[in-house]
Amino acid sequence: MKPVAPLEPSATLSYEQAGVNYELIDPLKVAAQRAAAATGAHLAAHGFKEVAASRGESAYVVDVGPFYIASIVECLGSKALVADEMHKLTGKSYYDSIAQDTIAMAINDLITVGATPLVVQAYWAAGGSEWFADAQRANALVVGWKRACDVCGVAWGGGETPALAGIVADGRIDLAASCTGLVNPKERLSVGDKLAPGDAIVLLASSGIHANGLSLARKLVERLPQGYLTPVLPGLTYGDALLAPTVLYSPVTEALYRAGITPHYCANITGHGWRKLLRHPASHTYRIHTVPEVTPVLKFIQQHARQDDREAYSTLNMGAGFALFVRSADAQRCVEVARSQGVAAWVAGQIEAGPKKLVIEPLAIEFGDDALQLR
Amino acid sequence: MKPVAPLEPSATLSYEQAGVNYELIDPLKVAAQRAAAATGAHLAAHGFKEVAASRGESAYVVDVGPFYIASIVECLGSKALVADEMHKLTGKSYYDSIAQDTIAMAINDLITVGATPLVVQAYWAAGGSEWFADAQRANALVVGWKRACDVCGVAWGGGETPALAGIVADGRIDLAASCTGLVNPKERLSVGDKLAPGDAIVLLASSGIHANGLSLARKLVERLPQGYLTPVLPGLTYGDALLAPTVLYSPVTEALYRAGITPHYCANITGHGWRKLLRHPASHTYRIHTVPEVTPVLKFIQQHARQDDREAYSTLNMGAGFALFVRSADAQRCVEVARSQGVAAWVAGQIEAGPKKLVIEPLAIEFGDDALQLR
Repeated sequence: MKPVAPLEPSATLSYEQAGVNYELIDPLKVAAQRAAAATGAHLAAHGFKEVAASRGESAYVVDVGPFYIASIVECLGSKALVADEMHKLTGKSYYDSIAQDTIAMAINDLITVGATPLVVQAYWAAGGSEWFADAQRANALVVGWKRACDVCGVAWGGGETPALAGIVADGRIDLAASCTGLVNPKERLSVGDKLAPGDAIVLLASSGIHANGLSLARKLVERLPQGYLTPVLPGLTYGDALLAPTVLYSPVTEALYRAGITPHYCANITGHGWRKLLRHPASHTYRIHTVPEVTPVLKFIQQHARQDDREAYSTLNMGAGFALFVRSADAQRCVEVARSQGVAAWVAGQIEAGPKKLVIEPLAIEFGDDALQLR
Repeated sequence: MKPVAPLEPSATLSYEQAGVNYELIDPLKVAAQRAAAATGAHLAAHGFKEVAASRGESAYVVDVGPFYIASIVECLGSKALVADEMHKLTGKSYYDSIAQDTIAMAINDLITVGATPLVVQAYWAAGGSEWFADAQRANALVVGWKRACDVCGVAWGGGETPALAGIVADGRIDLAASCTGLVNPKERLSVGDKLAPGDAIVLLASSGIHANGLSLARKLVERLPQGYLTPVLPGLTYGDALLAPTVLYSPVTEALYRAGITPHYCANITGHGWRKLLRHPASHTYRIHTVPEVTPVLKFIQQHARQDDREAYSTLNMGAGFALFVRSADAQRCVEVARSQGVAAWVAGQIEAGPKKLVIEPLAIEFGDDALQLR
């Protein structure tokens, strides 16, 4: 790690200053994606084929005949570091919450392609056997993991709990989840081929920062007089607000199916913030007319990191954790279905013919085609 | 990490002294497995059900009607530390080899239930964005990963490449793979229900230490005068011998299927060494009459760690990386099919009615029912 220079309190704190440099990672991602693409042909020997449009999407999809199989692996990221710090300050274990975050990272990606998540596998790699000796913490992890599986109606298949001294840092744990699901019936596939001008953009509320932007959030603590215990709202500390678990969106997508609504496309709003709305490769203009209220902890981060809206919306979810692209006739009902599952939602905009860009009208921000290079 | 006391050169080096304490990890595994088992019922809401016998097996299996879906997540473990040390000493990148190891950990587990691996997802969690700046190393990882996918005929679906400063140690990478496959036709399911006295035990050769026992192997380096450069055989250093990539066994299990042979059960011989032959919960006596020649690097480790056979066979694969339990009439043909795929194999023993134990006759070793507590 390059040492990160202490910041002037008045300076803007960007994601790169917080220690994550996508420019170093993205070339590897691209090389890996190209090599991976060349392996899709192997499926023919088994009588199957990949759904080519799922390459570069959040989950990979294979056509096995009667239905599609989708699979994914996702990690929590650095949110465990916040849980560890808050444990020191409050004595509470937050591992039940971050267990949910980890599963949400996998499930919320898997459902973007129209899949019903069926099986989750746990990947809990600790910095040494000693990590598991704290029975309270280990138990919280188990309890939170199971609860999230219950919410999503998935089977927890098993997993891997290695002790990786020397690879995972001492006293830490690297949490990840893999998930397998089915697109069934096959008409539920939502890889964007039906995405078209006129479609509505429905945004689903986030609960807070979810599990993306934590490097920035942790860096910001240095600027806060009371650190993680700085109040975001009366009675709610910054640390507790950050640790609100990520919303699990699969109950919404399953309820949409039962209501007869099949999204044309979905975007899980994670790293790169709202730029993820540009995820699909097609050239459309995405026009946002209604911006959800920003979750207090995200407003707080934006303020204290002195980010302008452009920086904030290109990094954080800013109150919207998931985007559904649906027929405009379905948009309002989509909002109602989400709300019936306890998730606030808004018809936030629509897709228009035009150059590929995202226009957030109420904030006078535009992101062009070059804002997101994931393929 | 507790500091590990320096060893007297004459003392036995056990796995626990090498820093891995299964007694701390196994209670969490058991708690997690119990919580996980309670989630299997969720599948009914989707019209599916779990294969209960796969609980506690190496891969989790769900009955989705026309076939079974199997899934798994597995990690490389600490072998990357050996690759990093050897890179310092030789300038070579070993990441193509350990990429294969990582995929082997997942695939060799998945195939135990009779599944054909279809999709692999990559989990490459680095200690910081800087890890990805070494293009030669990153490229070796991509090349080795793809080659292993090619050997196994699986599609590389995608993956996750997070930069996890503070969780993954600086300059290190935590490598894992998830794998999804199908048991198709369903008759290929091999979760042990047909396992019976009279069945033959066929062992498939390992290439060396594979990816289990590396903590011990790394600890041992302290005792070697030339460290990783100590010759195991003329012209073969200890480090290079350790880094022989794990054998990918799915070409063998696929060839067995084409030859009309369906194993009754399979065991991937990983952590806990040959005790993994006791994996299935049924009470049988597993009698070994033929012990494969021990791979030179494993013989070297046993010698220098001054382990007796009991300790060595309870920790390392000792030349046998995978066990097939087949009808005795199929045993010899099973060996031939494995050899046709370039993998040495032996009819090593048979299953007998009797108390649950493993008897390795040529070495006069027995492991009882209490030797492996995984459920």
